[in-house]
Order: sequence, then C-alpha cells, then structure tokens
Amino acid sequence: MNDCVFCKIIRGEIPSTKVYEDEETFAFFSISPNNQGHTLVIPKKHFRNLMDMDEPTVSSLALVTQKITRGVYNGIKADGVNIIMNNEAPAGQAVFHAHIHVIPRFKNDGLRHWDKQAPYGNGEKEKIAEEIKKEIK
Amino acid sequence: MNDCVFCKIIRGEIPSTKVYEDEETFAFFSISPNNQGHTLVIPKKHFRNLMDMDEPTVSSLALVTQKITRGVYNGIKADGVNIIMNNEAPAGQAVFHAHIHVIPRFKNDGLRHWDKQAPYGNGEKEKIAEEIKKEIK
Repeated sequence: MNDCVFCKIIRGEIPSTKVYEDEETFAFFSISPNNQGHTLVIPKKHFRNLMDMDEPTVSSLALVTQKITRGVYNGIKADGVNIIMNNEAPAGQAVFHAHIHVIPRFKNDGLRHWDKQAPYGNGEKEKIAEEIKKEIK
Repeated sequence: MNDCVFCKIIRGEIPSTKVYEDEETFAFFSISPNNQGHTLVIPKKHFRNLMDMDEPTVSSLALVTQKITRGVYNGIKADGVNIIMNNEAPAGQAVFHAHIHVIPRFKNDGLRHWDKQAPYGNGEKEKIAEEIKKEIK
C-alpha cells in the first residue's frame, strides 16, 4: 500500500534496523522499544491484522516469529520473550499493517501484566462460549 | 505429560469450558480472564513454549488462533483482540505447556499497554541487531 509506513519500510523508502528478511516476511527493530531488542515481524503482503490475513501468510509469519524469538532469546541472553499481536485500535494497534511484537524480557524489568480480572456470573460463561463457537469457522 | 494441568484439561481429567478442538489443537476459556471470552489456544502435543515447538505445530497453532480470534471478535462483538504468548517465567508464563492468549478488547476497558521505553545509546542498536541476527537460524 502506497501510504503504509510498514510497506515503505519493506521497500526501503523508510530506514529501519532490519534483523531478518525472506520472500514473505520482514523483521526490524521497533522504534519505540519496551526493551532493547524489541522486534516487529511483518508479512510483506499488506494485511490489516490477523483477522484478514490469508492462511499461507499466517503460517509463514508464525514460523518466522519462532525463528526471531529464538534469535532474540539466545542473541541477547534474555530471560523470556513476549509475543504480542494487537488487532484493531481498542487492542492497541497503531499501525494498520499486521505486525507481531517480539519483546525480550529480563527478570525484574518492570513490565507488568494485566491484573484486572473479569469473572463470569452464573451461566454466563457457557452462554458466551456458545456465542464464540457459532463464529468459529 | 502426566503432571501438566493443560495436558489434563485436553484429556478431560480437569473440566474446562471448551470452545474448539481438532486433531492437533484445543481451545478453552481462561480461568482468570482479563475480559470475558478470554480464550487459551494450546497444542495437544506437550511443548514448553514457542522456543521448543516443532514447525507443524507452530503452523497449526497459528491457524487455529486465527479462527478463534475471528470467533471471539465476531461472536461477542469485541472492538479488538490481543494475541499474547508468554515464554518463560520472567515473561509471565505460569503454566509450562505452550499457550496463546486470545483476549477480546473493548473501548475503554481499562487494560493498558506498557509505556516504559528502552531507548538505545549511540551504536547500541546496530550491535544488538547483529547479536540477534547471528542467532536467527
């Protein structure tokens, strides 16, 4: 896409710190890293996010994400790695070209997980599960 | 694995609210949901996390995660979806059977993203990128 920042990075029109590239996939450092080594893995083909991606791309993106995860973990001797993909703005997606965050983690690095819980009322769990099951195709 | 809680859930020895199952993959509601509909997608074969997973499983797990994401998004009319996979304890992994969180998001639901930044010093970015690249295999 002409206007897409990540498409421009893939084409080399915007500079990036690239860590990996193959025919379908591109990986480069986030410009706002939560930890050093925070990498974004993106498909070269433009998709908005996981919801509209085609199956070959889902598969190739996941396999490269595994490679990058191992690379980050071993390369900078991290203690753990978070894989995060935000889909749509209310989930935190800011660039609308599908991307997976690979974030190295270190003991006591100060990044905290959500502690907010959303318990179910009586019978609510089963009802919501049915609504989801109907839409799994 | 005999002692693994998620293996027991797959075998039906521990009850769960199942939303999906096929030959390789199982999906069920988290017992500590960040939002209602928070689902875990797991491979039936026991792996510790993304780092030790075999390639067919990475691919099948990703494809089912997409199905579940669409199911959650459409089924409960969410505004967005986070996909999160925590690898190793310092990254928040609590159960050591590989699992992907599919978390529905709603406008102003109170879940916040990390705002901590870890900027690079002079030349540091390129050095760290080289260390990672050497370990991408």
